[in-house]
Amino acid sequence: MAPAASPQLGPVVGMVGAGQLARMTCQAAVGLGVRFRVLAAAADESAAQVCADTWTGDYRSAGDLLAFASGCSVVTFDHEHVPGTHLEALEQAGAALRPGSAALRFAQDKRAMRDRLAVMGVPCPRFTAAASLSDVIRFADGHGWPVVLKAVTGGYDGKGVWLCRAPDEAADVLSHGLDLIVEEHIDFDRELAILVARSPHGQGAAYPVVQTVQRDGVCREVLAPAPGLAPGLAAEAQRLGLAIAAELGVTGLLAVELFQAADGLLVNELAMRPHNSGHWTIEGARTSQFEQHLRAVLDLPLGEPSLAARCAAMVNVLGGADRNMYSRLVHVMAADPGVKVHLYGKPVRPGRKVGHVTVLGDDLAAAAGRARRAASYLSSGVEQP
Amino acid sequence: MAPAASPQLGPVVGMVGAGQLARMTCQAAVGLGVRFRVLAAAADESAAQVCADTWTGDYRSAGDLLAFASGCSVVTFDHEHVPGTHLEALEQAGAALRPGSAALRFAQDKRAMRDRLAVMGVPCPRFTAAASLSDVIRFADGHGWPVVLKAVTGGYDGKGVWLCRAPDEAADVLSHGLDLIVEEHIDFDRELAILVARSPHGQGAAYPVVQTVQRDGVCREVLAPAPGLAPGLAAEAQRLGLAIAAELGVTGLLAVELFQAADGLLVNELAMRPHNSGHWTIEGARTSQFEQHLRAVLDLPLGEPSLAARCAAMVNVLGGADRNMYSRLVHVMAADPGVKVHLYGKPVRPGRKVGHVTVLGDDLAAAAGRARRAASYLSSGVEQP
Repeated sequence: MAPAASPQLGPVVGMVGAGQLARMTCQAAVGLGVRFRVLAAAADESAAQVCADTWTGDYRSAGDLLAFASGCSVVTFDHEHVPGTHLEALEQAGAALRPGSAALRFAQDKRAMRDRLAVMGVPCPRFTAAASLSDVIRFADGHGWPVVLKAVTGGYDGKGVWLCRAPDEAADVLSHGLDLIVEEHIDFDRELAILVARSPHGQGAAYPVVQTVQRDGVCREVLAPAPGLAPGLAAEAQRLGLAIAAELGVTGLLAVELFQAADGLLVNELAMRPHNSGHWTIEGARTSQFEQHLRAVLDLPLGEPSLAARCAAMVNVLGGADRNMYSRLVHVMAADPGVKVHLYGKPVRPGRKVGHVTVLGDDLAAAAGRARRAASYLSSGVEQP
Repeated sequence: MAPAASPQLGPVVGMVGAGQLARMTCQAAVGLGVRFRVLAAAADESAAQVCADTWTGDYRSAGDLLAFASGCSVVTFDHEHVPGTHLEALEQAGAALRPGSAALRFAQDKRAMRDRLAVMGVPCPRFTAAASLSDVIRFADGHGWPVVLKAVTGGYDGKGVWLCRAPDEAADVLSHGLDLIVEEHIDFDRELAILVARSPHGQGAAYPVVQTVQRDGVCREVLAPAPGLAPGLAAEAQRLGLAIAAELGVTGLLAVELFQAADGLLVNELAMRPHNSGHWTIEGARTSQFEQHLRAVLDLPLGEPSLAARCAAMVNVLGGADRNMYSRLVHVMAADPGVKVHLYGKPVRPGRKVGHVTVLGDDLAAAAGRARRAASYLSSGVEQP
């Protein structure tokens, strides 16, 4: 396989998956003059609607992946669900995967991730493999109930994570026959996220640490920078992000979801792609996470990650009962001309992420209030500040 | 013809022309969830490279225009070269043109524009029709040499404008048989531009007044806000822009190029579309001109036009001898991680606008210096601050 860069038009970045992350990466590629291609399951997916170079195919098919990669200078990912054996086959065929299969494994396999971070000495919740109910009960005997069961592979947005308060709840989860780990339940003060980029050259850049607010396992809002975070903890989070990216050999973005607990920071999850916790960077940082991901996977020098305003608040727009999202724009824009709306073109289903809004300002609480009002109205027609 | 808005996916905005203005409008449409279609002359044009819904056709063909418009909720323009008779035919067929033919006439026909602005009492250079050399000589007898000859239609980027110092130079221009006007040559201090938006509802919004620097008739850089501009003159420019937009019935953006002379402001040119003098707004304003144009043509409430930083400098990237623009990104990004680069995907030809760079900051001279260095390197490989 040969890279397809044209000296006049620049390289071709191929992204496997065509959700909103690919859609917003596509948007960033326009500015850089980088040709961008997506592999979509269907021609009406979020990114496929806006990408001039959409291929349709199945990310679970080695043949489709190989055909897609053959015309790309580098291949990157909108999600972590491509089977590891296919990733290795792509690399053997000469495709430049960013991140590569060796790094992606730690975003795909939570047990491998926990094992590796433990070796690195990165603070994480205590955990063990949960092959049977007796494993879970033994773990809970040592660390107490409730415990958290997690699917080793395939989880996202709270799917694949179960809080279990007693053995019967754990038995329910185990009955599905998934490969699981059991973790201690962390009584955290709040959740934080650190987003870093790393290029094949080894250059790293860290965004400001943000606070994330999750509900039912879904990210609902992001506050940048994390309000009231002690400078020492912010620096520690950035150091952790950059160290993990370097240690795992990540190329592109790495998002690290953290718990802030009484005794410090603990790593919860990793993602090696643009991340919901970084959507605020489109307007709120000098370099958006989507541009940064492109720069990183292309081994271009990384962009300035600093805040473009004193603070930024991002609130996700979830689908409500009324599917006509566009018609609500009129009200939201008239009510607040400074709200930045991003709609993903996805069919509206209750609870589904179909867009987000961002507000910049000098006062984070005020910005968050404006963003919540706009997101709530877009979702439901009701303003719930 | 029926509007093609889908309640789930939003309306379809069609833009006639597929240059960089359409490319950047396409990028803005992604965020708003607005479906965007371009009419390109060829599939490799700047916007056609990135637009998922590219139609190819000839903007001089009434048939191609009608076919293109039939699937669009509104139709807008990347340039002002669509023949007026075709615009009227489109409107008779039911197409919603933004701006409409009655307004666009004043961006297409400089004599009509000058006549109308004179009736409005808007300060402009003195002018008259120039059907013959004796018309020019009589005008110069009254107002002095040099004079400026302008093609009534079809000019852009300095094309269609001739500075004539003596009758023989005017005779040369007249010999081409174009429809011309003659204007007094203004000995201006500097050039300014005011960009406003106006919606069919009649809502108006004005961006901060900027200074533009032209060379050989081509915009080279834009400084926002115009440094040292007296608040009274800034307000006067904004008032002029909004008044002209309302009086001419503009829907969408209106850019007004101004001369600042010893005795005040004079209107030089009008454009009814996104404009080179507004490229800085992508990062430098709360609402980019491209998003604002979409909001205006769709009759959505307009966005906040204020500065997103203390100041912004935009410098155009012109083609140089070396066509490999992409390869230069490495140096530019490494030298200055805060420079925002926009490449248009256009074949590099010496002197052609192929991109622009924007730098935000607290100090306009410093930002402009950084932007000039980056643009110069992208053009030629040489940093000329």
